Amino acid sequence: MRTQVCIIGGGPAGLLLGQLLHREGIDTILLERRTEAHVLSRIRAGVLERGFIGLMHEAGVADRLEREGERHGGVVIGAGAEMIRLDLAGLTGHGVTVYGQTEVTRDLYGARHGAGLPTLFEVDEVAIGGLEGAAAEISFLHEGERKTITCDYVAGCDGFHGPSRQAIPEERRREVEKVFPFGWLGILSETPPVHEELIYATSDAGFALCSMRSQSLSRYYVQVPMSERVEEWSDDRFWEALRARIPAEAAERLVTGPSIEKSIAPLRSFVCEPMQWGRLFLCGDAAHIVPPTGAKGLNTAASDVHYLWQALTARYAEGDEGVLGTYSERALARVWKTQRFSWWMTQLLHHFPEQTPYDRRVQEAELAFLKESEAAQRALAENYVGLPY
Amino acid sequence: MRTQVCIIGGGPAGLLLGQLLHREGIDTILLERRTEAHVLSRIRAGVLERGFIGLMHEAGVADRLEREGERHGGVVIGAGAEMIRLDLAGLTGHGVTVYGQTEVTRDLYGARHGAGLPTLFEVDEVAIGGLEGAAAEISFLHEGERKTITCDYVAGCDGFHGPSRQAIPEERRREVEKVFPFGWLGILSETPPVHEELIYATSDAGFALCSMRSQSLSRYYVQVPMSERVEEWSDDRFWEALRARIPAEAAERLVTGPSIEKSIAPLRSFVCEPMQWGRLFLCGDAAHIVPPTGAKGLNTAASDVHYLWQALTARYAEGDEGVLGTYSERALARVWKTQRFSWWMTQLLHHFPEQTPYDRRVQEAELAFLKESEAAQRALAENYVGLPY
Repeated sequence: MRTQVCIIGGGPAGLLLGQLLHREGIDTILLERRTEAHVLSRIRAGVLERGFIGLMHEAGVADRLEREGERHGGVVIGAGAEMIRLDLAGLTGHGVTVYGQTEVTRDLYGARHGAGLPTLFEVDEVAIGGLEGAAAEISFLHEGERKTITCDYVAGCDGFHGPSRQAIPEERRREVEKVFPFGWLGILSETPPVHEELIYATSDAGFALCSMRSQSLSRYYVQVPMSERVEEWSDDRFWEALRARIPAEAAERLVTGPSIEKSIAPLRSFVCEPMQWGRLFLCGDAAHIVPPTGAKGLNTAASDVHYLWQALTARYAEGDEGVLGTYSERALARVWKTQRFSWWMTQLLHHFPEQTPYDRRVQEAELAFLKESEAAQRALAENYVGLPY
Repeated sequence: MRTQVCIIGGGPAGLLLGQLLHREGIDTILLERRTEAHVLSRIRAGVLERGFIGLMHEAGVADRLEREGERHGGVVIGAGAEMIRLDLAGLTGHGVTVYGQTEVTRDLYGARHGAGLPTLFEVDEVAIGGLEGAAAEISFLHEGERKTITCDYVAGCDGFHGPSRQAIPEERRREVEKVFPFGWLGILSETPPVHEELIYATSDAGFALCSMRSQSLSRYYVQVPMSERVEEWSDDRFWEALRARIPAEAAERLVTGPSIEKSIAPLRSFVCEPMQWGRLFLCGDAAHIVPPTGAKGLNTAASDVHYLWQALTARYAEGDEGVLGTYSERALARVWKTQRFSWWMTQLLHHFPEQTPYDRRVQEAELAFLKESEAAQRALAENYVGLPY
């Protein structure tokens, strides 16, 4: 098989890139390790930046998103008993859109299949070669056969555990990380959200997040030590922990119900540099991970897709390879700013086991300054709605 | 001896409070452990917030300050080769004033002596009693005799090592602190400053500050491990270290010369809560220390003085003791915000021995965001020119 761009990974980053390139007349083959049903069963982020929405429009797959996505013009920081509302729209002129990653993925598969673009599922033992030669070669097992794709470029959209990043020689990449000493215990519940906007809450008992997928599907999280086991968390125990961490005026309105999903996720920061090696370009989790505070994971994958789409368009439309050569640098400049923001939101709102009484008071003072300073609120809001590409 | 307010400590906080109270017709006696000449020989901060200037006007001692102080409408953050100028005046409507603490102290002693207010120097073995009784009693050695002052209130302006804080029973105060793993090696030099505004610089070699007392008297600092000994730092070695840490366009203009003072100061954060016990009220370093990054030490002492002056005025003019009862809470709310800011400026600009490559990149990203975001610049500037009282 031959194509212009082979996309490894059928999550939202790979799918979005595929659609954007298709609209530019650039051919892709997409390889996914699991089934489509499996990909669509993953429960992930649900807060989309304006830039992400713009890309969905560019890709021609924004109809349902525009119809069903919820526009949020604000977000609430819960600090003890207080609800500090950040008027995102007033502060930045922009808001965010709540629309589940699962729905994004569903829309993108719909468009990909509708356009008849080649997509291979249950692809295994992917080997990536020729990155420094005249053409890249992707070899893999599919339907019991070893197959090969020859292509100009490879987009590595295969997540943290995928093979793409490993195709950059170990001595030529630098991986840096930070592991946080806690995780998020999250549940999904068919109950109305406690508040019309998200609440990021900190309290003497630790961090909690009140999020949602829609006005009838709530997503809640509480900070827990990584030593906790999800089996030890009954729904009742979860609701009690959540109630203790959110402002009383929210806790009073909390509607509880059975969880339909419950899991504990670690909080980690990770960046691989460079994000490019010869004919290979990494996008999203393949190159970087953020802690979920501030909802930057999927959104940062989209910013990578934006830079790669622009670079490949310049390459094929104008024969200009120069833009491709700057991909890593351009993507990483924004990646590091979102890393910084996610780290900052995390340290502002969580309890850290190693935290001293001094550190705790500084954290409280930062919340007090945030409450009073429009400039501090705007600096947060600029990041939350998404820095410009 | 009898007075209304006994002020312990003849540094700028105690002197300023004394002048403000004098203007309200409130009697004070001021006790200082050293000689006036010794106090005036101390070389300290030189960047004054607008609030400080306002208090000097209220105290009627702003004439020379207005004449000789330098107005700075901006400050520069040096980040590697870059000079990021923050337009303080444009961002906040305010600037800062460069005028040495020594000069402030000199002006205040001039006013105190001019008004004939009682001031006792070389006072030793101060014992503070009666704080929970009908009157406070300060007993001390002076000119070979043990003397006693009976007073309504005691203002503890005697610095970190003074006896005032110790007069709060140990079990009733909470002291929290953070010690930074480095110090500042500083010199004073009769050379023109390298730049008309201050430069807070960070680089691969660490932090440096280009400050000044006037356009012919420069004050420079470089971050050093606390294990360094000042004897090992020749002037040449200092200038070389400084040059390596400031942006090239500044380094090229650096005028060097012999140092007239050279010392290493540790960086520490410290807060004692409460700042009030019975008839005792702590001001400034007696209650809290900040690292010097951002120049908040003297300025925060002045904000304490502001709250105490207001409270004592309400007490004597209107017989209202309620405001005095809220002193600690009001002062500490602002103290913690300046602690937060000083910590943040310190962590933004210094190298930390325990810093991981991840942490370093996040620091760089924060500088990159600061460079681009007017909101982030304004949040810094609001703190730098001084939060409202």
